[in-house]
Amino acid sequence: MSETRLITIRDLEAKVTRIFEISGIRAETAAAMARVIVAGERDNCKSHGIYRIEGCLRVLRAGKVVPDAVPTLNDTGGPILQVHAGGGFACPAFEDGKDLLIDKARRFGMGAMVIRDCLHFSALWYEVEELASQGLAALSMCPSYSSVAPAGGTTALLGTNPMAFGYPRPGDHPYVFDFATSVVARGEIELHRRAGKPIPEGWAIDSEGQPTTDPEAALAGAMLPFGAHKGSAISTMIELLAGAMLGEFMSAEARDFIGGTTFLPRHGALILAFDPDKFSAGSGRDPVAEGETLLRSIEGQGARLPSQRRFAARSLSEQQGIALTAAEFEMLDRFEAQGLAAVDL
Amino acid sequence: MSETRLITIRDLEAKVTRIFEISGIRAETAAAMARVIVAGERDNCKSHGIYRIEGCLRVLRAGKVVPDAVPTLNDTGGPILQVHAGGGFACPAFEDGKDLLIDKARRFGMGAMVIRDCLHFSALWYEVEELASQGLAALSMCPSYSSVAPAGGTTALLGTNPMAFGYPRPGDHPYVFDFATSVVARGEIELHRRAGKPIPEGWAIDSEGQPTTDPEAALAGAMLPFGAHKGSAISTMIELLAGAMLGEFMSAEARDFIGGTTFLPRHGALILAFDPDKFSAGSGRDPVAEGETLLRSIEGQGARLPSQRRFAARSLSEQQGIALTAAEFEMLDRFEAQGLAAVDL
Repeated sequence: MSETRLITIRDLEAKVTRIFEISGIRAETAAAMARVIVAGERDNCKSHGIYRIEGCLRVLRAGKVVPDAVPTLNDTGGPILQVHAGGGFACPAFEDGKDLLIDKARRFGMGAMVIRDCLHFSALWYEVEELASQGLAALSMCPSYSSVAPAGGTTALLGTNPMAFGYPRPGDHPYVFDFATSVVARGEIELHRRAGKPIPEGWAIDSEGQPTTDPEAALAGAMLPFGAHKGSAISTMIELLAGAMLGEFMSAEARDFIGGTTFLPRHGALILAFDPDKFSAGSGRDPVAEGETLLRSIEGQGARLPSQRRFAARSLSEQQGIALTAAEFEMLDRFEAQGLAAVDL
Repeated sequence: MSETRLITIRDLEAKVTRIFEISGIRAETAAAMARVIVAGERDNCKSHGIYRIEGCLRVLRAGKVVPDAVPTLNDTGGPILQVHAGGGFACPAFEDGKDLLIDKARRFGMGAMVIRDCLHFSALWYEVEELASQGLAALSMCPSYSSVAPAGGTTALLGTNPMAFGYPRPGDHPYVFDFATSVVARGEIELHRRAGKPIPEGWAIDSEGQPTTDPEAALAGAMLPFGAHKGSAISTMIELLAGAMLGEFMSAEARDFIGGTTFLPRHGALILAFDPDKFSAGSGRDPVAEGETLLRSIEGQGARLPSQRRFAARSLSEQQGIALTAAEFEMLDRFEAQGLAAVDL
């Protein structure tokens, strides 16, 4: 492992914010993006940490995101809040709409945030964790771009379509899971390719639609959904609920729109929030305490709850700072000095 | 294959209704149960067809269901409708609340039906299909009784926790999926046991929490969730949303309450409905037509959509009647003649 140096969460946020600001991104958007990216890094969720900055700058340099988009809230007074991201990044749209979504969930018992026309590059756990920390159950999902074949199919159609869920707990952290509905992330296959190692069966098919263990062939073909036809059905549900139902792009259109798979996709996102107090009303039971019984039973079996490693990493980062390698600091410095000029298309 | 004789859907419904009525079940409940059971048989979904009658009679004979329960609707005026099943079967609760749920979804854009204190023995697809046929997207889920270990765990805690989803299509049938979140149904393991065949790896663990391919050991141990930790997370979500959040039993309590795994469990159920017209408002796109693009692309790859076999079987049943074996007719006749006396505890 390479040597690391520590940086405080606050300092890293300031640094990442500056990178985005000098790259032409609206200040509020830059700050919102920095918060979610640094949250990923803080939680040692490296795939959604500072690694993401380059992708954001690339899509910006390619002119495929609106850097000064200001989210607009369309509240019709009912449980559904629409937030138009205006072709900008999703983070400020979520931040701007969050309080109203929470209000709606508490008032109506349930609420939905529809984010329109956004680039959603960050982890969904960030959103559901924010809501669950306010005592709500939350479900978040979005399409991505076609890279996954439906079970029984032959070519990429579905996205990696992540879904995340959060449920409040009495302690410091809510119950949170967040995963792609593909067997693995595309990056895993890329890592096997670089290492010259075959991928396990069941991860992908080649461009002829045949099962393959060759990472090159897999990258030219399509990934497979997790859990065979069940995972494929869930991925399809995400396309329908967070794409078609919103009148936003599904993964196939998102891929066509950006013209490839190397830029961040543009589409919508759906976030649902539920108030357990309203749903349990009249039962005489405490929905959070009941949930805790289950979660403790899972832990009592020695099974790990999702996000526990993230929370442990967070605790460490909060105490001592975030450990970054010299190469990571160099990358940040380069971005901070050169902005968009630091990235290739 | 044994010889079969045909019976019309209407005649079979009348026969099953009579069986439940002479067994002491309230007429409206008997009719609602017959409709969902015959719908299963009609669709050649045998595991939710007339095979289910015996389980209903057994739980009735054991005094573990309230045969004359009348569902009561508790409508607070918001998007959430609570239906108290009063310890009775879930079908009449769903039927009584369905129209109001549809109204709520259309009015608010989204609605929820909370069914309290019910025995849910039927397929969830029945519910989501009814809602999707009315132009709504629908999601239904419920706990069951502990028979599945969480991923990384050692003993049964989660239920087989089914979830079903429906989305409207322009043609005859909506998009519908419905599956248990265990790798397989418990009945599959039982079939392997009877055939003296080992079960595949990954289906179950034994009572020591170790992987097993022995069906006996598996039945004494616990099943595993589909899709490893992802399926386990979804199953946990169902416990939380359709159990804890409602203030209703989760699978562990349901098992303790009935004192075993051979009777139908008593718990709650959650049905969510979404109006695509409200969610897509202002997008200028048709959410059903957009969904159709995806679904046709899936079919165009040669992948089967879920429920297509059911719909094909339904079409045949509607044209020619439902084919039952002599043994099945005998069973129905015995139930019709003897009622509860025909079943053992």
